[in-house]
Amino acid sequence: MFTVGIIGATGYAGGELVRLLSSHPEVGRMLLSSTSFEGGRIETVYPNLLKRVSAELLAPDSVVAGSDVVFSALPHGVGEKFAVPCIGRKIPFIDLSADFRFDDDEATFSAWYGKPFEHAELRAHSVYGLPEMNRERIGKALIIANPGCYPTGASLGLYPALKLGLLAEGMVIVDAASGVTGAGRSPSQTTHYPDCTDSLAPYKVGGHRHVPEIARNFSIMAGKPVPMVFTPHLAPMNRGILSTIYAPLASPGNGKVSLDAGQSNGPNPAAPRPATKAIEAKAADLRERWTDFYKDEPFVRVLPYGQTATTRNVRLSNYCDISIHLDQTGTMLIVVTAIDNMIKGAAGQAIQNMNIVMGFGESVGIDAVPVAF
Amino acid sequence: MFTVGIIGATGYAGGELVRLLSSHPEVGRMLLSSTSFEGGRIETVYPNLLKRVSAELLAPDSVVAGSDVVFSALPHGVGEKFAVPCIGRKIPFIDLSADFRFDDDEATFSAWYGKPFEHAELRAHSVYGLPEMNRERIGKALIIANPGCYPTGASLGLYPALKLGLLAEGMVIVDAASGVTGAGRSPSQTTHYPDCTDSLAPYKVGGHRHVPEIARNFSIMAGKPVPMVFTPHLAPMNRGILSTIYAPLASPGNGKVSLDAGQSNGPNPAAPRPATKAIEAKAADLRERWTDFYKDEPFVRVLPYGQTATTRNVRLSNYCDISIHLDQTGTMLIVVTAIDNMIKGAAGQAIQNMNIVMGFGESVGIDAVPVAF
Amino acid sequence: MFTVGIIGATGYAGGELVRLLSSHPEVGRMLLSSTSFEGGRIETVYPNLLKRVSAELLAPDSVVAGSDVVFSALPHGVGEKFAVPCIGRKIPFIDLSADFRFDDDEATFSAWYGKPFEHAELRAHSVYGLPEMNRERIGKALIIANPGCYPTGASLGLYPALKLGLLAEGMVIVDAASGVTGAGRSPSQTTHYPDCTDSLAPYKVGGHRHVPEIARNFSIMAGKPVPMVFTPHLAPMNRGILSTIYAPLASPGNGKVSLDAGQSNGPNPAAPRPATKAIEAKAADLRERWTDFYKDEPFVRVLPYGQTATTRNVRLSNYCDISIHLDQTGTMLIVVTAIDNMIKGAAGQAIQNMNIVMGFGESVGIDAVPVAF
Amino acid sequence: MFTVGIIGATGYAGGELVRLLSSHPEVGRMLLSSTSFEGGRIETVYPNLLKRVSAELLAPDSVVAGSDVVFSALPHGVGEKFAVPCIGRKIPFIDLSADFRFDDDEATFSAWYGKPFEHAELRAHSVYGLPEMNRERIGKALIIANPGCYPTGASLGLYPALKLGLLAEGMVIVDAASGVTGAGRSPSQTTHYPDCTDSLAPYKVGGHRHVPEIARNFSIMAGKPVPMVFTPHLAPMNRGILSTIYAPLASPGNGKVSLDAGQSNGPNPAAPRPATKAIEAKAADLRERWTDFYKDEPFVRVLPYGQTATTRNVRLSNYCDISIHLDQTGTMLIVVTAIDNMIKGAAGQAIQNMNIVMGFGESVGIDAVPVAF
Repeated sequence: MFTVGIIGATGYAGGELVRLLSSHPEVGRMLLSSTSFEGGRIETVYPNLLKRVSAELLAPDSVVAGSDVVFSALPHGVGEKFAVPCIGRKIPFIDLSADFRFDDDEATFSAWYGKPFEHAELRAHSVYGLPEMNRERIGKALIIANPGCYPTGASLGLYPALKLGLLAEGMVIVDAASGVTGAGRSPSQTTHYPDCTDSLAPYKVGGHRHVPEIARNFSIMAGKPVPMVFTPHLAPMNRGILSTIYAPLASPGNGKVSLDAGQSNGPNPAAPRPATKAIEAKAADLRERWTDFYKDEPFVRVLPYGQTATTRNVRLSNYCDISIHLDQTGTMLIVVTAIDNMIKGAAGQAIQNMNIVMGFGESVGIDAVPVAF
Repeated sequence: MFTVGIIGATGYAGGELVRLLSSHPEVGRMLLSSTSFEGGRIETVYPNLLKRVSAELLAPDSVVAGSDVVFSALPHGVGEKFAVPCIGRKIPFIDLSADFRFDDDEATFSAWYGKPFEHAELRAHSVYGLPEMNRERIGKALIIANPGCYPTGASLGLYPALKLGLLAEGMVIVDAASGVTGAGRSPSQTTHYPDCTDSLAPYKVGGHRHVPEIARNFSIMAGKPVPMVFTPHLAPMNRGILSTIYAPLASPGNGKVSLDAGQSNGPNPAAPRPATKAIEAKAADLRERWTDFYKDEPFVRVLPYGQTATTRNVRLSNYCDISIHLDQTGTMLIVVTAIDNMIKGAAGQAIQNMNIVMGFGESVGIDAVPVAF
Repeated sequence: MFTVGIIGATGYAGGELVRLLSSHPEVGRMLLSSTSFEGGRIETVYPNLLKRVSAELLAPDSVVAGSDVVFSALPHGVGEKFAVPCIGRKIPFIDLSADFRFDDDEATFSAWYGKPFEHAELRAHSVYGLPEMNRERIGKALIIANPGCYPTGASLGLYPALKLGLLAEGMVIVDAASGVTGAGRSPSQTTHYPDCTDSLAPYKVGGHRHVPEIARNFSIMAGKPVPMVFTPHLAPMNRGILSTIYAPLASPGNGKVSLDAGQSNGPNPAAPRPATKAIEAKAADLRERWTDFYKDEPFVRVLPYGQTATTRNVRLSNYCDISIHLDQTGTMLIVVTAIDNMIKGAAGQAIQNMNIVMGFGESVGIDAVPVAF
Repeated sequence: MFTVGIIGATGYAGGELVRLLSSHPEVGRMLLSSTSFEGGRIETVYPNLLKRVSAELLAPDSVVAGSDVVFSALPHGVGEKFAVPCIGRKIPFIDLSADFRFDDDEATFSAWYGKPFEHAELRAHSVYGLPEMNRERIGKALIIANPGCYPTGASLGLYPALKLGLLAEGMVIVDAASGVTGAGRSPSQTTHYPDCTDSLAPYKVGGHRHVPEIARNFSIMAGKPVPMVFTPHLAPMNRGILSTIYAPLASPGNGKVSLDAGQSNGPNPAAPRPATKAIEAKAADLRERWTDFYKDEPFVRVLPYGQTATTRNVRLSNYCDISIHLDQTGTMLIVVTAIDNMIKGAAGQAIQNMNIVMGFGESVGIDAVPVAF
């Protein structure tokens, strides 16, 4: 039985780690820190934990010193330094911030996050923690950069297309929406109930920090730069990220109208027609490519043809659901992915990474069935 | 004072017409029909109307026979025939269904709606009722095809770009989400509270009936075919349609990385960088084009630079809010539009059309200030 | 045309006054103050007002000095002093805080609000602004204490019972729930979306400041002390207060089981039975008493027998809906009332008071039809 | 490993049984029936189960015949007959309907449910399945009547007061609200998203079928009839029942004003004052009684003094949270309880009963930590 440390345990990602790890069979003890509530108790901050978790909120240094594995759920730039003693003690440091997501590309990190790496040398020990992409390297790393929530949903959706070379040149569009927990536990005007309920709001259009992370993943997956646009939205729900991804297929006639033989073409022959049987068959074939690609992945579900991914069906689970579609012309690939932003998008994936690096079963402690109602 | 007839008064679009018209100063009396509740009373179906509207629900023929102007809020294909007596009596027939939205293009209509025009000759009297596009023709028409909800939000957003020739060749992506009232008043599994709350769900990906309507509007606005893709989503909110529209700008270097002079390019020179000042200035300039284009429109608000359209800020009003953005490379135009799907997307726009065709002030009865909380 | 001043215009009550008064036909101009945003503009704080209201946010003194009637939407204890210059200029001061709600009972006010009256002498000019109770006095007052939101719903529900002497001795229970706008515009952990959505939470059980206000109203209405208990709840909705009020009827056999003649009584003769026809008839009779009592009130709707008040049917209106019920024994009166907490519970009622004191039609500017979907 | 049968597996209670039992370590196999979807598959009805549960939906008879324990999640009156073969085979039948909740009191059952017992003799084998009340009898029974959702929350809240004789004569008021899943999976106008979101609605005031069940529990707990009133409300949330229970304490001076020594009494000596220190101490003492009463219960949490039960803190768990309060006079006990209506209010409690009757650990498979965000 291991002792697990969580620094930044009272934010939502930290709190979710506490909830999930409290039932993890390999975890013996949790040491928790909190900047905001140091000296308090976790079950006071989260009364849902009453009778289940009881722990004082310590200083981060003592958490790191006493643990066999450390999760950092601190904001970007704050937790990097705690990786140093972990490397010294050769224990895994799993970081939910962006600090280690850009490996040796400090230029991109600093362009978007406004600060340099503090300990650039740590990147010799770090890996980007998307298990479906980097499982083997994760198993050997000491620092694991847990992916961002949006990048997880976007990257898993398009990975087969990029790896298998299914796309034409052209912009990939990632249009995504997140539940409000994605904005964290600190109250703000944006997350004030009357301001965000019953409304849908894009934010940071053209400039969200997940742009370079998604682009980086796409480029690594494709082996070449992939031009992309990403727009996040705030949706009036607690959990979930839905990503609708548009990518032009590498096939002739993109964007051209597809006419069925015998179609009456009326006064406007360029007007769209419903997808033909041939297009439907093509979509079903593509869906098989994704199914095959992910056939051994425990947490990716490619949906049966005809179903569409929704956040409801992955809620409170570590699954990423993926559905494959084509537009009416059969030339634009539309991939929809759904994750729980707090689980596969944060704490669950972090535990998946812990399971890999510690040699536990990959699904241990994160195998909850989704809650659909 | 006029007598207004509403056939199909107990659906949501019909109910919203009743609510709005009950305070319209030019409306003297409303005659209402309902297939589901014929013989009942509107204030029983909608108890919110108590003390405000009291009317028996009649058969549609008698409503048409007794009115000076008729709104049809019946489903597609059901109400077309009631336009015949209106033409006979030379009174306006404002149709909220799709029946008259495709003018002489019966081929496209029947391809998507699965039936021919019943009275094709009526199209000699009809106009597509988007006032910002067809105001003059609306003023002279007898049959007004009130636009679909999604097509309204999408078309108003891209109209200036298409009309002014600002776009490059390439797919336009319309990614949009609607509140649940858009699915109508009849209960279904999809709109059952536990099934749609706290979740975001795309539907009819690549095959929604608003595809040909949006494409038709884009093509008319541009004067040439515009390839496009449209994906609707169901969002857990009552009202509102948010459209995020992606369109490649007619400028060199689309999709290429934009490097600032002196940018440290690191190991990955193709990695995205935050938008430069030059890109921000370009976006602000574009925003001026939209502002100028719509400067005389009573119900279009182009937002100040830096603000983003959200459904919250147009809720319960007839406004369409538009915000203009660029991606980080400055080559992809991102237009966000927000409308209340029940008002500018249905009943409000229908009343705007009535005001135009009847010669009332265009904003009369639909000038409610949006309700933001 | 009058100039209306609103001090505290950027809170929710103030913002709602701005929204409603912007369409009030007797209001020529609004002067607005804001502590938080002084020097800013109202349409920046509330972008929904774009193109409709444009005003600088001034200091409160200049607002008071330039207005013909002043609304104070400041917190308790902060706005009292601004009544002084209004009295001096003999213009109405309509206060949405609790400062003037306790008339000469400073002891009760200070016991619950923790401070004395600052200008006790002002109570010579003040009246409790529940129009249904004090309409004539309101018409002659200079200071109007706009009622609290919960007290409005509770008091209107029980007024006929108390006035007509229908109740037995015994505790009255007021169990009520409010939408989140009732907590104001300032973000807090309690009103953070993830903390309050999908949950129902009582608060300040046995100790909410509206206890003495409700008790005071009940006692005045009954002409004697009325023991009462009040529990507020926070409900996951934006607007609305629903009050479920339990009061023992002055009739024999309270709390005893009511047996139908011939009822098989089984092994447990004290077990409850469904209400008999006689009990249903008694409830219908009682409902007639309420209908008659409120027959001339423009904003009270006693629902037809068989309907139940819900917040949905009064949303965005100034109505108070009331439904009358009995428990299964026919001895406990259950009155349900619904109001929009922002309108009849705050800004709408304040405008109703303005209309009365200024001699406008009582419903002018606050006659919106409720929005049920 | 056992085979578990669930008849009525596609309703919400049935679906929740499937979800929870799919992770129960003693359950080897599930046999499922569905009237609506017979011949289909559970993972098609509930796509969240993909990759986790795969089962054909059978006829109920074959489910009963092949199982070691049977859950019936059928509507009232439909499932009673399936208990007969279970008794014959001496396997437990756990019924989530009301059919067996009234033991030998067929008169009360038939008065509220409109039908007689079909197999009255089965009551010789049945017990009311509230473990905190009847644990020992449950362990020996063959038929377990799983309690109603509202009765669970109400009964657990007041059990100590009734058992310990803490109450005065007088009406007990149970004011409660349920999430929408409580209305079941079948769509209806009442549960249509636009009709129930953003609104709070009482229903069946004075006449809900849980009245006799709550009254029966109260009477058994107190050893004498307890007059009571119960009002349910529909709240805009998915899960949870919050019960606010008012009961007069057996202490002198109920309903009288409590004056602190030295309190300035002003012009209105009967006006309520905030609770004194003595009253607060009394409430804290009472809370200790509840804590002691439930000290060995695995699923009841009496909250620390100063906290208030909310549905959020028990969401998706089998806990019943209880908080103890007094009104400002110290004479009215106010108990607040929160449960997840689908778990402690239905499927979770049914599994708790299975665990007891089968001799498993009582918490096995239902020990999820509540999900607070």
